[in-house]
Amino acid sequence: MKTKIKEIIESTETGQGKIFTYTVQFLIVVSLITFSISTLPNLSESTIRILLIIEIITVALFTLEYIARVVVADNKPGFIISFYGVIDLIAILPFYLSLGIDLRAVRIFRLLRLFRILKLIRYSKAINRFYKAFIIAKEELVLFTFASLILLYLSAVGIYYFENAAQPEQFKSVFHSLWWSVATLTTVGYGDIYPITAGGRIFTFCILMIGLGVVAVPTGLIASALSQARTEETKEN
Amino acid sequence: MKTKIKEIIESTETGQGKIFTYTVQFLIVVSLITFSISTLPNLSESTIRILLIIEIITVALFTLEYIARVVVADNKPGFIISFYGVIDLIAILPFYLSLGIDLRAVRIFRLLRLFRILKLIRYSKAINRFYKAFIIAKEELVLFTFASLILLYLSAVGIYYFENAAQPEQFKSVFHSLWWSVATLTTVGYGDIYPITAGGRIFTFCILMIGLGVVAVPTGLIASALSQARTEETKEN
Amino acid sequence: MKTKIKEIIESTETGQGKIFTYTVQFLIVVSLITFSISTLPNLSESTIRILLIIEIITVALFTLEYIARVVVADNKPGFIISFYGVIDLIAILPFYLSLGIDLRAVRIFRLLRLFRILKLIRYSKAINRFYKAFIIAKEELVLFTFASLILLYLSAVGIYYFENAAQPEQFKSVFHSLWWSVATLTTVGYGDIYPITAGGRIFTFCILMIGLGVVAVPTGLIASALSQARTEETKEN
Amino acid sequence: MKTKIKEIIESTETGQGKIFTYTVQFLIVVSLITFSISTLPNLSESTIRILLIIEIITVALFTLEYIARVVVADNKPGFIISFYGVIDLIAILPFYLSLGIDLRAVRIFRLLRLFRILKLIRYSKAINRFYKAFIIAKEELVLFTFASLILLYLSAVGIYYFENAAQPEQFKSVFHSLWWSVATLTTVGYGDIYPITAGGRIFTFCILMIGLGVVAVPTGLIASALSQARTEETKEN
Repeated sequence: MKTKIKEIIESTETGQGKIFTYTVQFLIVVSLITFSISTLPNLSESTIRILLIIEIITVALFTLEYIARVVVADNKPGFIISFYGVIDLIAILPFYLSLGIDLRAVRIFRLLRLFRILKLIRYSKAINRFYKAFIIAKEELVLFTFASLILLYLSAVGIYYFENAAQPEQFKSVFHSLWWSVATLTTVGYGDIYPITAGGRIFTFCILMIGLGVVAVPTGLIASALSQARTEETKEN
Repeated sequence: MKTKIKEIIESTETGQGKIFTYTVQFLIVVSLITFSISTLPNLSESTIRILLIIEIITVALFTLEYIARVVVADNKPGFIISFYGVIDLIAILPFYLSLGIDLRAVRIFRLLRLFRILKLIRYSKAINRFYKAFIIAKEELVLFTFASLILLYLSAVGIYYFENAAQPEQFKSVFHSLWWSVATLTTVGYGDIYPITAGGRIFTFCILMIGLGVVAVPTGLIASALSQARTEETKEN
Repeated sequence: MKTKIKEIIESTETGQGKIFTYTVQFLIVVSLITFSISTLPNLSESTIRILLIIEIITVALFTLEYIARVVVADNKPGFIISFYGVIDLIAILPFYLSLGIDLRAVRIFRLLRLFRILKLIRYSKAINRFYKAFIIAKEELVLFTFASLILLYLSAVGIYYFENAAQPEQFKSVFHSLWWSVATLTTVGYGDIYPITAGGRIFTFCILMIGLGVVAVPTGLIASALSQARTEETKEN
Repeated sequence: MKTKIKEIIESTETGQGKIFTYTVQFLIVVSLITFSISTLPNLSESTIRILLIIEIITVALFTLEYIARVVVADNKPGFIISFYGVIDLIAILPFYLSLGIDLRAVRIFRLLRLFRILKLIRYSKAINRFYKAFIIAKEELVLFTFASLILLYLSAVGIYYFENAAQPEQFKSVFHSLWWSVATLTTVGYGDIYPITAGGRIFTFCILMIGLGVVAVPTGLIASALSQARTEETKEN
């Protein structure tokens, strides 16, 4: 019988294995929606009660899943300290801990339930190719992340010197200017902070001409590395 | 004579076939412009009458086209239940349905006329290469769409915890924060909602550094897959 | 002597030829800056006089250049009706036309002077590779431009139905909604118009997930086509 | 003993060399954070004193490093006039200069301390590949930078003619319109300036359709050139 359960839990190719996998994924999504609803202000008492009931059911089912996984594992301690083993435990632990502790502290532990979302990754096969692409482009990604950070800092210092006198409230310090750098070089541009002096605007133009070719490059790198990883896979088969 | 009409309707290489194709495309564009104008507020009665006349003429011509297509089809039931057969029918049906029903309900059915735009695709040959590219990059597109959804959710939860206390009206719940996630990670940045706390801003920076490399990658994937599809086509010829 | 002038004007490899080329480019830039300054409000009379003098000098020099080009051309009528011949003429004509006509009408003709900027392209060699890349990716570019237009229209109609009731002033008609579509799908996001209803926001999310992979793809296509054009060039040499 | 110090300073592969390298990098980051904090308004006197002490310590250590580098260099004058030699000197010089001069002037010299950030590049190996990629795509990068500048100018003139009458304060001159061009074509879209007339909005749409395929292409070019540089490196090994 243990072999049967093992097959259902660990295989995603048999009919029963698929049903099990999709059920767990469905429960994770239910759990996340429940969590999201619980953040809404002015919830009625009946809604809070329903959310609590769903919470208890999902945690109970996750607990059963965790116990089943431990039981069927060939190497029990190995599973418990494995990446997925720890995530499975962290996903249910906060609920049990909150039963014993003061209600205030619970809110902080509830955040840990978010780790459940990582359980979704468990079932994704395609993640392997992404990992390969990451290895291929690793060096350039590190270099460009590093170059982006330097550029963000330099542009923050630059705009601080141009705009500080004209807008002392908006560009109060280099730290406030950094927020402008982030919003501008990623082209988000919320519009809460922007240069108004001629010098600041010319500086923004120059920094954008250089910056777009630095901050946006990693995206292109990942895309081309993924193509390469795919080509290599095709050749192997 | 049926062979003659069949040639005109189904071939886009003869002179008459081209005229037919362009006439239908012109009618679709006229139909869409008419629809757009009808949404303008405070239209004069004469304008409404002209729009109605154009509507009747275009629907009449689309009806004739549909009947002609059914008549010349080798496999009549096959055409009627085919993708383009259904679209052609849906494009004219709402007009006839609206004649029999109450005026209020008509507005909803009018939306269906938008399917006419899909008729434009019928005449595009290049769509095939795009389809191939989609097949090539399918797995990665699914993975990145999935990763984008998880990232959007996690960033919404994160910003909720950082900003909820400082801006309870803007970041009311995880659902309101999700709107921020969408506007930020796609770099649209309307500016209706943005972080103001130091923690929220540092979090935004971190999530953008990771997020841009996830949300924008699919675009690069499609572009490189299209290049690959083109190279393969060239080799075949 | 005609051969000498011909060499100076048409060759960019000799020392004198380079000086000539750079002088013309410098004059074009001067002419554009003069034009830009003349749009500033509240200019003093002395500034207007200086601008007029610079204008007369540059036009005189451009006229001399045009005459010289006609004189040295082997095929005179051929040069006059060529692309660059017409641009060279259009760049100076408005000035002479404005001498004979009423002052009001002049403002419209002044716009034509902008064509002078196209003279800068004359001296660029690298433009050829870009042209090749455009030929390589032409079909996909047409398809994606077409798909972008359809998507822009559909998203405008969609948001109109979601937001019209809630914001009748902002989303007045499909035409007003089109402005939102343009600002959103290009991720510019000025923030002058954005959805506020839950339905409109979910619709925006969906349309962005699809739209970014359509509107931004042409950029990737041009980049990869340019790489291909470069590789082909390297092979040929 | 000189050989020993030389090994520590110039090698990054031995244990002691790594410790030295990381210590210098740590000092640079400390120095930048100190500088950023000193821009905050309303600092208490004790904070200013602590910042000054950290400043003195870091400059002293940078001075020691500079002297050590000069001493161990095989070609002393060669090191002093080399790129890194000059940066190392510029990074410490402002502090010593500020001791002898009036306090007001110091603020300007402090900016030069920012060059210290360039010392971080000294220790990066991966920068070589980026340099190769830059050489590969150099011609296209120049062409697209040039095309972007022309497009920015033309779109500024265009929007000026469409919007000047409707928004004389926002689109005051071609220079003010240029700011709009920069914010729009880079898709930053702060929202401080945007078209409101139908003509201006249609113009914006057209310019964005062309412009995105010009301004954003360099990013794709760098990404694909980096892939090429990597492939060439792999072949060589």
